[in-house]
This record gives sequence, C-alpha cells and structure tokens, in this order.
Amino acid sequence: MEQLIKEKAIYQKNIIPSKNISKDHFIVENNQEYAGYHILLDLWHVEFNNSIKTLKKIIRQSIQISGATLLHIHLHRFGKEQGISGVAVLAESHMSVHTWPERGYIAFDIFMCGDTNPELAAEYLIKTFKPKKEILKKIRRGVTKIVK
Amino acid sequence: MEQLIKEKAIYQKNIIPSKNISKDHFIVENNQEYAGYHILLDLWHVEFNNSIKTLKKIIRQSIQISGATLLHIHLHRFGKEQGISGVAVLAESHMSVHTWPERGYIAFDIFMCGDTNPELAAEYLIKTFKPKKEILKKIRRGVTKIVK
Repeated sequence: MEQLIKEKAIYQKNIIPSKNISKDHFIVENNQEYAGYHILLDLWHVEFNNSIKTLKKIIRQSIQISGATLLHIHLHRFGKEQGISGVAVLAESHMSVHTWPERGYIAFDIFMCGDTNPELAAEYLIKTFKPKKEILKKIRRGVTKIVK
Repeated sequence: MEQLIKEKAIYQKNIIPSKNISKDHFIVENNQEYAGYHILLDLWHVEFNNSIKTLKKIIRQSIQISGATLLHIHLHRFGKEQGISGVAVLAESHMSVHTWPERGYIAFDIFMCGDTNPELAAEYLIKTFKPKKEILKKIRRGVTKIVK
C-alpha cells in the first residue's frame, strides 16, 4: 500500500507539477500572475451516441481528471436527434459544450484557474471522442505583471 | 408609430447586417462556414458593486442586445465579498463570467452562433463596467471550407 502511494506521488509529480498559487487562485510564474488557461477545443467527426447521459458522464470525468471541483452542471437538448448545449460551473471557473450531431462536431471550452490541469481534461475528451480532426487553442486569461 | 418602426428597421439594418445562416445555425460566408464567434473578454479595474443581482441583470441585458435567447442562467458566489462565477446557456451557445473583486477583474466569454451579434454583448459589457483596461480576443469556432 505504501509503495502504491509512493508511486502515485511520483507519477503525479512528474506529469502534474504543482503550481504556485496566490490566495485568490491566480497562478504565479516568474514575474507574472494569471488567472489560468482557457482552452478552446474543436472536435470533428467524433464517436458519440448523442446521449445527454453519456455527455454528462464524460464531462464529470474530465473535470475530475483535471483536479477541478464541479459545483453545477446543466445540459440542454434542442430536440430529438438534435444538438446539446451545456455548461458546468467549477470552483475553478467553468466548462462548456455544444454539439452538432449532423456535422459530427463538438465545441468545448475549458477555463480553469488555481492548481488544476485543464490540459488533462482536454486530453481525456480527445481520447474519449476519438475525433478524426481536433483544433486546440490555449489562451492565458488575466495576465498581470508582478511589480516588485 | 409607423415612422418609429421604420427608423428601428433602418437602425438595425445599419448596425446588424443579417447573416446567411445554415439550417443548423452555422454562418455561411464566401467559401466557408463557421459555428460563430467566441469572444474572450478581460475587464480590469471595473466599476461593479459585487452584487449577484446586478451581474445577472447586466448579463441578461447583454444577451438581449446581441439578439440571443437565454435558456438557463446560474451564478454562484464563493463567499461574502468574494468572487462570483456564472454561466448562461443560450439557444445560440453560451456566456460565462468570473469575477475577482479583490483585483477589480472580470473574465467573460461569449460564444454565439446563428444570426446574433456577440460583439454587441461585449460592447455593452465594456460600456457598463467601465474598465480602465480591457482585452478582447475574438475567435472563429468550427470553421469549415465549403467544397463545391
């Protein structure tokens, strides 16, 4: 058991470097602070059964993997066999999803501040939906220079 | 009355050019289609009383101005005098907000597809919060080339 915990700690240390976080959850790096990363993820030609239940489960899982905490989730289906739009409020910001089943297209955004890993959520979504093409944009939000 | 309607029509025609929209709400322009614009808006040193009621009212108003339809809104306050996180599901995608009152910082994202004007929502938010500094990023989502 102790060995397992040790291995997990090493694994996490290697892939998830712990971040230097301010009291109000900004990330402190070198001579700047920023709120966090906002990832815009476009997935094309996905493998998805268009079920709201499946989508909710996948989103919950991706949030857990990223180390974030889910506070509220709401998914809306526009009509039978039509798209789904949804949002999740996190203790560390939010996630959103919009699906176009007729195009096999899903648009996610993942904004996470604090000691979380939005990249891991994106990675999980790609692994799960197996898109033939994906476009990922990663944008720093709230960047401020630290004046010493 | 007739005169008023006519003036309104001219006003809307001038500032809101109507878009060429596909059946599934993609915007068709020249030889490409795209889902819509995703605006990331950072506001610094805002004028805001940190009231959840005020914020909800402003978001509702900005959605109305953009021509979008609100389906669901949820705002969460983290604690007395602390920040607010919130999301709104729209018939045309979503909006989100995160506030850091201790920094006078607010992060919005506005993703709208179909015949809406997310730029007008952003403009209204800037006009209302009167930030000393703002950063606006506008990103096309779901861009696809039309093969003829």
